[in-house]
Amino acid sequence: MPLSTTARTPGRAALPQLLDPASIAIVGASRDTSRIGGVALDHLQRLGYQGQVYPVNPRYAEIAGLACYPDIESVPQVPDVAVLALGADEVLPQLRRCHARGIRAAIVYASGYAETGEAGAGRQAALAAFARESGMAIAGPNCMGLANLTTRAITAFATTFRAFPPQDGPGAVSLLTQSGNVCAIVYATGRQMDVGFHQFINTGNEACLDYADYLDYLADDAQTAAVVGYVEGLRNGSGFIEAAARLRAADKPLILLKAGESEAGSAATQSHTAVLAGNQAIYRAAFAQVGAMQAGDPTHLTDLAYLAGFRQRSAGRRVVVASVSGAMGALSADLLSAAGLDVPRLPEAVQQRLLAGVPELGAVANPVDLTGQLFNRSGLAHAVLDNLAATDGIDVIFLYATAYLLDRVADELIEVAGKTDRLIVVATTGEPASRARLADAGVALFPDCARAARALGTYVGWLGTAAPTAHWMALRARA
Amino acid sequence: MPLSTTARTPGRAALPQLLDPASIAIVGASRDTSRIGGVALDHLQRLGYQGQVYPVNPRYAEIAGLACYPDIESVPQVPDVAVLALGADEVLPQLRRCHARGIRAAIVYASGYAETGEAGAGRQAALAAFARESGMAIAGPNCMGLANLTTRAITAFATTFRAFPPQDGPGAVSLLTQSGNVCAIVYATGRQMDVGFHQFINTGNEACLDYADYLDYLADDAQTAAVVGYVEGLRNGSGFIEAAARLRAADKPLILLKAGESEAGSAATQSHTAVLAGNQAIYRAAFAQVGAMQAGDPTHLTDLAYLAGFRQRSAGRRVVVASVSGAMGALSADLLSAAGLDVPRLPEAVQQRLLAGVPELGAVANPVDLTGQLFNRSGLAHAVLDNLAATDGIDVIFLYATAYLLDRVADELIEVAGKTDRLIVVATTGEPASRARLADAGVALFPDCARAARALGTYVGWLGTAAPTAHWMALRARA
Repeated sequence: MPLSTTARTPGRAALPQLLDPASIAIVGASRDTSRIGGVALDHLQRLGYQGQVYPVNPRYAEIAGLACYPDIESVPQVPDVAVLALGADEVLPQLRRCHARGIRAAIVYASGYAETGEAGAGRQAALAAFARESGMAIAGPNCMGLANLTTRAITAFATTFRAFPPQDGPGAVSLLTQSGNVCAIVYATGRQMDVGFHQFINTGNEACLDYADYLDYLADDAQTAAVVGYVEGLRNGSGFIEAAARLRAADKPLILLKAGESEAGSAATQSHTAVLAGNQAIYRAAFAQVGAMQAGDPTHLTDLAYLAGFRQRSAGRRVVVASVSGAMGALSADLLSAAGLDVPRLPEAVQQRLLAGVPELGAVANPVDLTGQLFNRSGLAHAVLDNLAATDGIDVIFLYATAYLLDRVADELIEVAGKTDRLIVVATTGEPASRARLADAGVALFPDCARAARALGTYVGWLGTAAPTAHWMALRARA
Repeated sequence: MPLSTTARTPGRAALPQLLDPASIAIVGASRDTSRIGGVALDHLQRLGYQGQVYPVNPRYAEIAGLACYPDIESVPQVPDVAVLALGADEVLPQLRRCHARGIRAAIVYASGYAETGEAGAGRQAALAAFARESGMAIAGPNCMGLANLTTRAITAFATTFRAFPPQDGPGAVSLLTQSGNVCAIVYATGRQMDVGFHQFINTGNEACLDYADYLDYLADDAQTAAVVGYVEGLRNGSGFIEAAARLRAADKPLILLKAGESEAGSAATQSHTAVLAGNQAIYRAAFAQVGAMQAGDPTHLTDLAYLAGFRQRSAGRRVVVASVSGAMGALSADLLSAAGLDVPRLPEAVQQRLLAGVPELGAVANPVDLTGQLFNRSGLAHAVLDNLAATDGIDVIFLYATAYLLDRVADELIEVAGKTDRLIVVATTGEPASRARLADAGVALFPDCARAARALGTYVGWLGTAAPTAHWMALRARA
């Protein structure tokens, strides 16, 4: 067995209080819902959090209908977590008071630490020392706050939760990023694709808890089915590898975007979260070794998070393309091939079977050209797709249709999706009215054929990584 | 001088009637606006076409308030163009009648020609022979119809014009595709980015007029500032090269997407529009030689069409990145570098100047990290961007901001854009309320940083191709 990292960070034990709090104090709470001390309070009140919320600010007796307390000592209950909406100079004294009060977890928004030079680095060292001594689980500093979207314990000051509310019910994808903004961006783009999120974690400067600590927690978290991460540089490589391999062993995708590919990007990460981006090739190799999916940009990251929600369906390298447009079929085949997938020519017998069912087809070799007849001939889509779903040597069905035509054949597609467990990926243009119904039927829907092909290629590549990762981890444990 | 292709296709002379008709007859007009014979008629009536429209169908005396004629002979005026919404068997007899009536241009929607095998190939040969003999300009067959979005002469049966109406006033981008669907898709995605289109041309089977004929026309067309094309295979390589080089000489971008990169994609194009996709490497080299921009997928194609609308601004390889997020700055720098652009470290003196103006900046080397202070400190964005716009050694300003923050600094950005002629590219997430105002100020706005970086890389690469293309064409003319 590899060594556990649990012992290393004292605050690890209080991660449940930090990430799944039943009660929350906000120190520095504000009545102004556009200010940093007011945003989280507003989220907690409006977005359905069922726990206790205690605003703390000596200037108010009440904020938005909640009793407001002059100091943390006056709060009538020891909250699970204290959110510090305070400037850097006030943080450490306040943390000592929280600790004295028995609070085991805290979130530090403040910047002005290691990311800002020598004085900040000293401040951060003092914070880290306090965390070690106290055993408190401290998120940040220089972080945007956290969110448990399942319980709606949203302590992040990101306004994106207003524009893009969490899903109804629990989520399965947990975000773990070394940037608050990337966390918020992937959350927002994911919500637009109906991804259901569980944890929203951005690590900030990682003065106390680092990336590996959170990853270790998420590997054990029953609610988390996939982890979507953004990494600038890792402080605890060994802890990361063990947690990542545990995720792979549990068949939970770990999907990572790494900054610092270029010279300018690498220099930027150093000043941003005070971490060396390191050698990109080394990171790439390590991510491959632990069986992580690697994204190339934030949208690719979101697309992979979305596709990871279709694990219940079987998938593989061999893709059949069906399209309402010969050109889009050809382009899709090109893009799928470029993404490392196969678009095999269908056997003659299968082609004959397709043509026997639907003589109007424009092409049957793969891509299959459904042509505009889809519009006029009811049942055409079902006849073809049902046939393809039952054809040997095909792992994934890839369909391109405009939103207009997709709506027209949605019922037929949903019927086929109910009969096969193969992955069905649809690329469309425009906004189909049948989006929610297709999602319920387990059809993966992308707004762009290039994005769909690229995500599918990365995802299918990942499916084959379980055994190699397990083999390597076994070798590593023996070494 | 290279030989002109004008003499080769007799129908070339009637291209003005085909592409800018003052009167249109629709043979096979339908009252059902969802049917092929009804869609164009509906577009012409609803979307502002000012010319004469003559529905032709013996079954009706009137359609939607317009007099309907029993046959083309009864139409009271010789229309510039006849749209044939008829099956393949009726096309040639009807064309002969149109020709006898003095009509010089026609659009053939019907499929069932060379794309469908031997009988179809014979039918197409007969159509091509008639076109040569008659000198008519015949679009198609197997095409979606055309559209002049400037005059609203929309004869295409694409329903996308309902969902995405044309811009107010004339457009500058002309579409020229070997697929009706790709034409419609790029039109729709382009309209969502506020691209203003002029011609919407999809060539279908090119039995009479081929890709080069239309390209030649567009090279001379004063209203066309850029051509956006989709190509499966070219029938007249020499005509294409001459027209493309004339576009390059006129400094009008020709932006091309080519299908057939993969084996499956190449086979598909063959059955789709009956043309060999040819050797992809040869096409790539030829496109580079004539100074065309090459897109990798339909969205990239649209993004380049959009960026081509910012020709009035100066641009080049050296990009400064400003971001409200350190992480997004680093990722943007990575993506720009991967797209072949430079993100040079700013000289110390410039960095000091930036910090002197705005001490709160998180980083100033490039990327410049504007930090969340952008939200609190009015004038910060202006101070930094104005400074960068005046800095030597920078060609393009690339800004990342969430929609929320972008709206907050829109006025400052617009002021800077009014003072510099450098290209300003903004990548955002979400839907900024300031979109239209930023567009009016000449700011290029993308909904995704990866798309923005990729498009900018291709566009800037194209800027340097004028001289090499001219040199090669001069050598070619002497040979």
